[in-house]
Amino acid sequence: MADKCFQSLPGFRDFTPRDCAVRNYLFSVWRDVAHRYGFSEYEAPIVESTELYLKKTGGELATQLFRFEDQGGRDITLRPELTASLARIVGANQRDFPKPLKWFEIGPCFRYEKPQKGRGREFIQFNADIIGEASSGADAELIAMAIDTMLALGFGENDFVIRASDRESWLSFCTQHDISDPSEFLPLVDRLEKLKPEVLEEQLGTFNVTRQQVDDFVNNPDNASPAFKEIRENLNARGLGQYLELDLTIVRGLAYYTGAVFEIFDTKKSMRAVAGGGRYDGLLSTLSNGSADLPATGFAMGDMVIQNFIDATPGAKLEMEAWMARNPACEIYLVIADESKRNDALGVIAQLRTSGLSVDYPMTQLNVGKQFKKAEQSGARFALVIGSEFPEMQLKNLSSRSEQTIDNTSNFTETIQALLDAPDGPLIA
Amino acid sequence: MADKCFQSLPGFRDFTPRDCAVRNYLFSVWRDVAHRYGFSEYEAPIVESTELYLKKTGGELATQLFRFEDQGGRDITLRPELTASLARIVGANQRDFPKPLKWFEIGPCFRYEKPQKGRGREFIQFNADIIGEASSGADAELIAMAIDTMLALGFGENDFVIRASDRESWLSFCTQHDISDPSEFLPLVDRLEKLKPEVLEEQLGTFNVTRQQVDDFVNNPDNASPAFKEIRENLNARGLGQYLELDLTIVRGLAYYTGAVFEIFDTKKSMRAVAGGGRYDGLLSTLSNGSADLPATGFAMGDMVIQNFIDATPGAKLEMEAWMARNPACEIYLVIADESKRNDALGVIAQLRTSGLSVDYPMTQLNVGKQFKKAEQSGARFALVIGSEFPEMQLKNLSSRSEQTIDNTSNFTETIQALLDAPDGPLIA
Repeated sequence: MADKCFQSLPGFRDFTPRDCAVRNYLFSVWRDVAHRYGFSEYEAPIVESTELYLKKTGGELATQLFRFEDQGGRDITLRPELTASLARIVGANQRDFPKPLKWFEIGPCFRYEKPQKGRGREFIQFNADIIGEASSGADAELIAMAIDTMLALGFGENDFVIRASDRESWLSFCTQHDISDPSEFLPLVDRLEKLKPEVLEEQLGTFNVTRQQVDDFVNNPDNASPAFKEIRENLNARGLGQYLELDLTIVRGLAYYTGAVFEIFDTKKSMRAVAGGGRYDGLLSTLSNGSADLPATGFAMGDMVIQNFIDATPGAKLEMEAWMARNPACEIYLVIADESKRNDALGVIAQLRTSGLSVDYPMTQLNVGKQFKKAEQSGARFALVIGSEFPEMQLKNLSSRSEQTIDNTSNFTETIQALLDAPDGPLIA
Repeated sequence: MADKCFQSLPGFRDFTPRDCAVRNYLFSVWRDVAHRYGFSEYEAPIVESTELYLKKTGGELATQLFRFEDQGGRDITLRPELTASLARIVGANQRDFPKPLKWFEIGPCFRYEKPQKGRGREFIQFNADIIGEASSGADAELIAMAIDTMLALGFGENDFVIRASDRESWLSFCTQHDISDPSEFLPLVDRLEKLKPEVLEEQLGTFNVTRQQVDDFVNNPDNASPAFKEIRENLNARGLGQYLELDLTIVRGLAYYTGAVFEIFDTKKSMRAVAGGGRYDGLLSTLSNGSADLPATGFAMGDMVIQNFIDATPGAKLEMEAWMARNPACEIYLVIADESKRNDALGVIAQLRTSGLSVDYPMTQLNVGKQFKKAEQSGARFALVIGSEFPEMQLKNLSSRSEQTIDNTSNFTETIQALLDAPDGPLIA
């Protein structure tokens, strides 16, 4: 062919059924954990005024925006993250809701970045935020939910760790070292591991601080803030303390974080942070122009790094495969062994589906051998065979090859459901 | 305040928790019906090359596109519909999948239109397609699924009807009347009800056809195509024939439909079509540049018109409210009546959540009266009270006010789960 097929844009993904099932597994775990924690789901538009993001980040993300002008001349942007929309929505509606709000969202975000492992131009984020609660109890609740998300995905104590800190610790450090503008100093802490030693030493020097002073500060657990100590006690009470680690080098670079901050890492530290979050007490006021001056703490996990982490962790991968086995695309494939019984078969299919079962079948005449091949391909555990002896039917377990006769009585759908639920499927009649 | 709050863009919606629950109800019904019919879920990118849409529609949708240039100079578009992406994905991957494919998708689409009742610039579509099956059995399967979607949403025979036709009927008409280019004539049939009588008469005249001839054709059920008759017989066999009506004026305007076409209407015809679909046998070949020359039939339902229809139909609205009552944001609100027991309470909360229950609680100290107020606001049916008598706890039914003592034994979560599942909740101990 001279022409190529159309392709997806670089950094954008097609989710064929297998990939979509992986995605749905993540959605299912995220929604389940958020629900257990009493969070309510919301959703924001995928497109917002560009102004909203410029105001939030002070331009930090501006080079990565999918930004354009719509047909009405508006400067609009595909959302790069969710917090700005959340702040806008809460600012507009907060009087309708008792505080604190515990809200979560799952949906696509967009950044114009170089596509690479764990980073795409369209990715899905799970966001959870607690708004209107200033105490460390909210930070602990959020971190506990992050831990339980990892546990629900099948990760264990040997697989991941939450590294947490508090900007308050560094504000004390700044006071001790006469650093007048901590917001200029903190981004440097964020890059301790990333900068070359001589560059770091030089940049620390502009604040009259040495690398040794920073290391001594970081290595002394007494520098944990009161909030961090409360979070630790809170998590201990839940039996989750073992997943938390103090790491004062965690400050999260963005300018709007104000207190406790945390990131989830694989214990091997072989990949970038799996998720992160923190307290952002001033942002809602900024983004709502003062109409909602509420403290807030939030957390976000993207779908791409966590998928890589699942693939690299046998326990987590098994958990995912087990979920998929419990959720097959199709439960029963109906084999029409006598084409003259097609209308009877359609009646049976309709009844099985109405009873809640998932049923596929050949939509046009096909020989029985090919139908059984399609039954296997469909992923169904069972074939129901309708032939000349209808209303008698045969229910076959496609793995054990055992079978059982079913009569088309008034309650045959219940009979079949019971046989499907039996651990070994239908027995030989 | 001098500054206003930021607002969402015109035609874009914020889903606060109540609206998001309505959306999730639709998603739940759509996924459940698609699953029962043996469809597998896929997802396409939200952004595609503009070329893909221009090639599909021949420019028909071009004035409504959210189209822009990305930072790499690509001409890209927010997807206005799903079929083009589906064709691209199937074209690229079809060798991996046995035919026919039964695939569905649920996700946002974008059109730059004037926002009005039932139409927004961002809307959610449920798309289901059967690819690789040319027989009318596939059209019937798809129409049956559309009917079962309406039934699952709580609509009955008096509420909706499927109006169906087949372009084949009109091709016979064109042959009879020496119309050489049916693709110019069919869009006129699509507008029979919309054009002014004199304009219609004049335009029909350019094909040497009178209004009377068109009306006679439309009103004669013998003009139903063989495929339509097969679809009717198929639906009758499923017990769904009563929802289908022949309506030869249904042709669906777009140029790529080739056979059976259908739309769902409310019986009062007080709103635009709720959903529509049809056969498009040539489109996959066009969009995959010949790499996937597969027959196809598909169907799409948007979230906005169906929501209006649910709101206007008492039976459907009750069904939705019942689903929401079965899916509360929170099941148990934990009241900490003695602040010194907070750590014990956190341990109990962790165990309840691990057992799968949804639990909320005050994250900071609050007097007991306010906690019970929050319990009511949370939507929880039950409050679990932990006070000085811990490990003894009180489980209260918030509507009946009955209560029961629970001991913090090893299996207390099972005891609570059983009490919650009981139809009347906990009895007086």
